[in-house]
Amino acid sequence: MTATDPIPDTTAADLEAVLQRAAGAAESFGALPPAERARLLGAVADALDAAGTELLPAAMAETNLSEARLTGELKRTTFQLRLFAEVLAEGSYLGATIDPADDGFALGPKPDLRRMLVPLGPVLVFAASNFPFAFSVPGGDTASALAAGCPVVVKAHPGHPRLSARVGEIISAALSEHGAPEGAFGVVFGFETGTAALRDPRVKAAAFTGSVPAGRALFDIAASRPTPIPFFGELGSLNPAFVTPAAVRARGAEIAKGFVTSYSGNAGQLCTKPGLLFLPADHGLEDALASQSREVGLHRMLSDRLHEGYCSRRAEVTGVPGVRVLAEGEVSDGTVPTLLTTDVQTLLANRETLLEEVFGPLSIVVTYRDEDEARQAAEAFEGNLTATLHAEEEDSEFGASLLNRLRDRAGRLLFNGWPTGVAVSPAMQHGGPYPATTDSRFTSVGTAAIERFLRPVTYQNVPQTLLPEALRDHNPWNVPRRVHG
Amino acid sequence: MTATDPIPDTTAADLEAVLQRAAGAAESFGALPPAERARLLGAVADALDAAGTELLPAAMAETNLSEARLTGELKRTTFQLRLFAEVLAEGSYLGATIDPADDGFALGPKPDLRRMLVPLGPVLVFAASNFPFAFSVPGGDTASALAAGCPVVVKAHPGHPRLSARVGEIISAALSEHGAPEGAFGVVFGFETGTAALRDPRVKAAAFTGSVPAGRALFDIAASRPTPIPFFGELGSLNPAFVTPAAVRARGAEIAKGFVTSYSGNAGQLCTKPGLLFLPADHGLEDALASQSREVGLHRMLSDRLHEGYCSRRAEVTGVPGVRVLAEGEVSDGTVPTLLTTDVQTLLANRETLLEEVFGPLSIVVTYRDEDEARQAAEAFEGNLTATLHAEEEDSEFGASLLNRLRDRAGRLLFNGWPTGVAVSPAMQHGGPYPATTDSRFTSVGTAAIERFLRPVTYQNVPQTLLPEALRDHNPWNVPRRVHG
Repeated sequence: MTATDPIPDTTAADLEAVLQRAAGAAESFGALPPAERARLLGAVADALDAAGTELLPAAMAETNLSEARLTGELKRTTFQLRLFAEVLAEGSYLGATIDPADDGFALGPKPDLRRMLVPLGPVLVFAASNFPFAFSVPGGDTASALAAGCPVVVKAHPGHPRLSARVGEIISAALSEHGAPEGAFGVVFGFETGTAALRDPRVKAAAFTGSVPAGRALFDIAASRPTPIPFFGELGSLNPAFVTPAAVRARGAEIAKGFVTSYSGNAGQLCTKPGLLFLPADHGLEDALASQSREVGLHRMLSDRLHEGYCSRRAEVTGVPGVRVLAEGEVSDGTVPTLLTTDVQTLLANRETLLEEVFGPLSIVVTYRDEDEARQAAEAFEGNLTATLHAEEEDSEFGASLLNRLRDRAGRLLFNGWPTGVAVSPAMQHGGPYPATTDSRFTSVGTAAIERFLRPVTYQNVPQTLLPEALRDHNPWNVPRRVHG
Repeated sequence: MTATDPIPDTTAADLEAVLQRAAGAAESFGALPPAERARLLGAVADALDAAGTELLPAAMAETNLSEARLTGELKRTTFQLRLFAEVLAEGSYLGATIDPADDGFALGPKPDLRRMLVPLGPVLVFAASNFPFAFSVPGGDTASALAAGCPVVVKAHPGHPRLSARVGEIISAALSEHGAPEGAFGVVFGFETGTAALRDPRVKAAAFTGSVPAGRALFDIAASRPTPIPFFGELGSLNPAFVTPAAVRARGAEIAKGFVTSYSGNAGQLCTKPGLLFLPADHGLEDALASQSREVGLHRMLSDRLHEGYCSRRAEVTGVPGVRVLAEGEVSDGTVPTLLTTDVQTLLANRETLLEEVFGPLSIVVTYRDEDEARQAAEAFEGNLTATLHAEEEDSEFGASLLNRLRDRAGRLLFNGWPTGVAVSPAMQHGGPYPATTDSRFTSVGTAAIERFLRPVTYQNVPQTLLPEALRDHNPWNVPRRVHG
């Protein structure tokens, strides 16, 4: 294959083979000691790092993203794989819990009960377009599912097919070289292939990052299977940011600058882009916001399809009566950010248009008349990945009342910062009430992402030799355990 | 109302009021310190214990269950409420995790991140018929949701409406007396009421224990809402038990006795009833099994509807060619257990009839010719709540190969025991792959049941005064936390 051949859709026969291999690998891959899977993840990370000089140009060619951005993203991606290796080495992800037999228990003799988490089985990952490494073939879904002990089948995103194919080859080779069972990882191509895989009984869970309509359609397939499976969709988010009057007074110019950097970066193609900035009516930052926005250079979007979608949504939002342009922007050959403004009442009267994500470099400054109106706005949201508050000590009571309302509608709350840039950390939550995600109880970034692909099993009075290692008395894997009684 | 008035269905207007109060209570109830909610759970437990002499006859009248059984069940129910009070007092259920800021972090400066679990909001509980206390109005779903900080609306089971109404009054009075916000708890009646509540946007999660068709219909409603919600359905389970030849030799008579006690107890109306017993072809226990079964006394089923359903399924299963009667049983005015027998090949050839739960006192002894055939049978199951193995040290390799297969198909694995009787313990898993439950990652019994009704929120760089107590530096609630870095 040369660099310009198209990547054909995976055939039904090839998909069948991939799924059969994944199902066949589930038992042995899941049974590997965590330290072994940690070694495999490290090998994948090393192989991807080693291939950087090949992968970065490939990613640039297919995504219009900058070398600096992609270099950082690849680093983050291999960091993430190694972080999950650490999670495996540490072992508390297994949730091992031992409750010894107790003949004197209040409700009558209690048996010996030992509980731990086991892998769900083959996981289908729908790759995203906007992070060709970190949320694509080698991304967080793949890393966390492999860490959990689940074979992974990635449905590649059509936005960067050759990069996906090449990364898939590198991962498969690294796994195979280091002794992973054949079938623990595979990449498939094509829309129909993805939905066929999602319907296949051998697939036990799926993860997705993308738009609300696509994510909801896939969620509906997963939920309507004869045997429904967990579907972790990260869909759309407005990521509102609220600024109190005192914060405007104390740091108005800095806030304007930070906001523009956050909403316009990567041509606004981030799930945590702040799509709405709430300012007091007399904020006086219009000129600063407009001029900062105009200073952002031209950036081509990830694909023509996304560019068209952006143009259409931009026209729709700009056309709402009561919405005014602060910075016109450009949408010809690439994009320069567009900044709009309106007030809370116009926003609330046009929820269907204005309270829906615009994927691209557009944001709306919304002015509130008083604290009550700001609180009213904070109650208008559906679920979000993030919500941000800029406040000062002197108006912390108002700030607290906003934060409280935002907490019910978001998975991450930021103070005096901006939501873009998601740290890969044990305390990260990248998820939120619908439609931010289809299951707000889980995260797709950070070490807790592994929890999505595990389920508990309890062993009752099972003798030592038949227990899994993590539950045996002498704890051969030396995993942290909760022992009761 | 006198003891014989029917309980009318909740009107649409009354349901609206109940849901509005529940939504109104969500913030204040969820914000109570865990120790406060622990006190409320204790007060509910005390009130139910104090009402035992009134509640037990009421339960007996509506369920045909014995006083001894119901006395034990009420004790278990109040124990469970107090156990969740302990979970709250201990505090690790909050999953508080602190990852301090790190300017030298590998991927660039990392903010201060603090993560904890918060309540989902109002939970709808569909009560079960077979445990009028422990899986009904005051049961595990209610206890765990209240513990999580979620207001609870119980849709009462029509099998014991007056008991449900009375228990609801007692719980509401205890909560109100001890200062819970109005609306933290309510009971509603009627099928249409339940489905209307499930569709209501104020309801944020639902739990159900019952049959596969009913549970699946409700799951489908929950998943197809404009905003889908988590639905925890505990549906049907066959609970297969496998006995190795060495176990038959060592303890055949004891196994026969234990099995009959387990499958026939409470007229077989338990979700963990062993519905299939796998024995080697030459087991020689037919007479023992048949005579033990015949010795079980007449037991009326919970309701006429369940009795009719049982008679119809019993006729269907008994009519399969190749299925032979070991103990005929009775189904006239009440039931005496029915024990059938067949072989693995007949079982596999009639999956649709024989590999589906019979709710009532019937079980099937299935003979296997050799180890391979037993393993083949162990691979035939869909999801189960439990799977059981009886083995001896001398055939532990065969046992291990069975256990391995059963692990992929069950939430709890028992060794040389019987699955009925579910200990309320931190290490319990009462859940399993579909159709045992609609979400195998969670349990409806044991302290981990609280995890169903919580979601994570991360606070990024939020100052001490705006942080929830559990995440503040000085840890005023003194909850266990994971602190990184």
